[in-house]
Amino acid sequence: MSAASFFPQDIIIKKRDGGALTKDEIEFFAHGVVSGKFADYQATALLMAIFLRGMTPQETAWLTDAMMRSGDVIDLRDLPGAKVDKHSTGGVGDKVSLILAPLAAACGVKVPMMSGRGLGHTGGTLDKLEAIPGFRVRLDVPEFRAILQTVGLAMIGQTPQVVPADRKLYALRDVTGTVECIPLICASIMSKKLAEGIDSLVLDVKFGRGAFMKKKEDALALARAMVAVGQAGGKPVWAQLTAMNQPLGRCAGHTTEVIESIECLKGRGPADLMEVTFSLTGHMLVLGGAARDATDARRRMDAAIADGSALRKFREMCAAQGGDPRVVEDYSILPTANRKLDVRADADAQGFVAEVDALRCGHAIMALGGGRAAVTDNVDHAVGLADLIKIGEPVAPGTLLCTLHLNDEAKGAKAEALVRDAIKFTPAPPRPEPLIQDLVR
Amino acid sequence: MSAASFFPQDIIIKKRDGGALTKDEIEFFAHGVVSGKFADYQATALLMAIFLRGMTPQETAWLTDAMMRSGDVIDLRDLPGAKVDKHSTGGVGDKVSLILAPLAAACGVKVPMMSGRGLGHTGGTLDKLEAIPGFRVRLDVPEFRAILQTVGLAMIGQTPQVVPADRKLYALRDVTGTVECIPLICASIMSKKLAEGIDSLVLDVKFGRGAFMKKKEDALALARAMVAVGQAGGKPVWAQLTAMNQPLGRCAGHTTEVIESIECLKGRGPADLMEVTFSLTGHMLVLGGAARDATDARRRMDAAIADGSALRKFREMCAAQGGDPRVVEDYSILPTANRKLDVRADADAQGFVAEVDALRCGHAIMALGGGRAAVTDNVDHAVGLADLIKIGEPVAPGTLLCTLHLNDEAKGAKAEALVRDAIKFTPAPPRPEPLIQDLVR
Repeated sequence: MSAASFFPQDIIIKKRDGGALTKDEIEFFAHGVVSGKFADYQATALLMAIFLRGMTPQETAWLTDAMMRSGDVIDLRDLPGAKVDKHSTGGVGDKVSLILAPLAAACGVKVPMMSGRGLGHTGGTLDKLEAIPGFRVRLDVPEFRAILQTVGLAMIGQTPQVVPADRKLYALRDVTGTVECIPLICASIMSKKLAEGIDSLVLDVKFGRGAFMKKKEDALALARAMVAVGQAGGKPVWAQLTAMNQPLGRCAGHTTEVIESIECLKGRGPADLMEVTFSLTGHMLVLGGAARDATDARRRMDAAIADGSALRKFREMCAAQGGDPRVVEDYSILPTANRKLDVRADADAQGFVAEVDALRCGHAIMALGGGRAAVTDNVDHAVGLADLIKIGEPVAPGTLLCTLHLNDEAKGAKAEALVRDAIKFTPAPPRPEPLIQDLVR
Repeated sequence: MSAASFFPQDIIIKKRDGGALTKDEIEFFAHGVVSGKFADYQATALLMAIFLRGMTPQETAWLTDAMMRSGDVIDLRDLPGAKVDKHSTGGVGDKVSLILAPLAAACGVKVPMMSGRGLGHTGGTLDKLEAIPGFRVRLDVPEFRAILQTVGLAMIGQTPQVVPADRKLYALRDVTGTVECIPLICASIMSKKLAEGIDSLVLDVKFGRGAFMKKKEDALALARAMVAVGQAGGKPVWAQLTAMNQPLGRCAGHTTEVIESIECLKGRGPADLMEVTFSLTGHMLVLGGAARDATDARRRMDAAIADGSALRKFREMCAAQGGDPRVVEDYSILPTANRKLDVRADADAQGFVAEVDALRCGHAIMALGGGRAAVTDNVDHAVGLADLIKIGEPVAPGTLLCTLHLNDEAKGAKAEALVRDAIKFTPAPPRPEPLIQDLVR
């Protein structure tokens, strides 16, 4: 940590007037918000100035680095093999991590994955894993390392010692209108990922109705910023741009997504979910040196699913982290909803599905009790959506649009209304939109 | 107070994106910073957004009004006569209030003046008054009203019940680089003045080296904003623009300025100081209906000085506020410095005074111990500058440039260096700059 000392207001004024901050000034800020030398009310003034004035790629890289060093940085260099992780900016039905991590590990890269919880209309990997009875996501670093070494993957929550500056800054941004700011989003994501001790990283930057970024150009700008920060830190980062207008796969929730993920590892996954999973996992294999190229990667992934080794990795990880490994054969051990309600097309339904609004589907899950409005909320793992119809599929009177897993009739009625509102029909087949639209590297 | 309730972040985001806030949103902010519903770290994010996005005249008027109503508003309507006050944005050697208030009262308007303390290189009226032994500037509202009624003027500090939102916001602005923002400065000044229960107001907006506003166009913008806010509140406001490059008058400090002020009331004031005083007081008399126009006002002021009635008002006010009224005849009862040091022109001095840098003179007073670096500092009332030479006056070897009143030799040496640095010579008489440059009304 630098011994440089500044007055917070001088740093604020510099950014306010459109200046670029120095490495020392940024470090003073990132460490000062944790130590209290940079008061909360000064940090938020600077955050707003950054929001409105921006940050250069160099400033963003310095901020990422300073935030990363505000807490413990995990050192995995003594572990043999390439350590590669994936991060997604989040979407509805995005359970890719649950499939990708064991699949990549089965193909020979180590996956040290620290994930977050769901908030608002998007779910979180930790919450999904916790649907598995006994599964522990709060491991300390020695346990995390040990499981990573023996199993080849470990999926845990961020430890309190990792990037405290991000927790502090995110809480402040959340209540001061400074969330949607590319340099700050970039530094928040990248500081946490680089603190994991990874060698390289694959990012899935979502855009569209159900994503945090509504516009493709914003997603592209964020992808470029994160790739640049990776470069500055000497870690190769590839960022894929993925459309998120309809939910990924046919399930959304917790138990329903765990089941769908295991089905994927058994070779029975829906096309769109597998397309995204194979693409991202393929990038990990290439970055980690476990495959020559995308074609080679795909061949290895197909083999790992066909021979059951990917499913076995999932099972081993479950067991290592305290989860009941029988889940891969017996889905009934997962929390199960009281009632399943089929939502079917009306008597006048005709044509094709034009739209399955991911945001409304996310709200339907929240209505069922399967989401969080505030970080302190509990989630009902049992509830969710399954059998969701996809854009382009034909509809007629009585076609099954979705099955709601519910524990409360009133909540179910609300969710049904939201799901019906989410799904729109059209007389002619809609023009398909590509799912994966770009790769920044 | 409105019953409207908002999320602070929604208000912040609206301003962040360049929107204009509603009356209710502004009220929620101004009252929320006092009640805590608008957290400090949210207030500073909004202040920075206001700094960078601005505020419309309507927003500024609403902010002023909401801040004013964040605490007690003094009601003087039952007191007979026009209540008129003056406010200056501050300068070095600006003791106009001490002369203007008794002069205006002697001419028939009531002057309910609440002033501030000095900070940095500019002095404060309250500190100057406290040089007079026994003088009390902390009166409660009933005492203030009683003295105003019987004497016709009262000069006190802001009570803690008046505009608490400004104290809170100013403290936050001071440490977050959001001070130099015209709508916020305007609302800060005007909310306090309108809370005094005045009918109309004269403003002295300084610009130049020794002023808060360095550029005339900024001073003009501030003047216009304040006049508009007065109009919106139904109170006539006139704003004079005054150059502040050299100190006003020949004295700066506390005891030295009190003496100079009393000399002015005796008809022996320096030309520049009297020019500003007559101009501002004249506006007050016209606004308060005590004079038909500037010429009539000047005639009345000259008479009030000639017949001793202005000096008598000063004496009465002193007595009413606990100060020793003998000060008007005997300056030796004021705190007096141990030593007076004449600063004289060097052996090679020649020509005319081109510059007397007001900012450096202010720093010289601080060096002597007669200023405040922080609000908690104590000031030495005895020290200061006297006999200060003025721009355009001739110099030769040995010409007296200034007399330093000092209590500490080392501090005196520092102050002397600053004063010598402040004064520049030129071979030819410099072109005089007009002191009063504009009137906005």
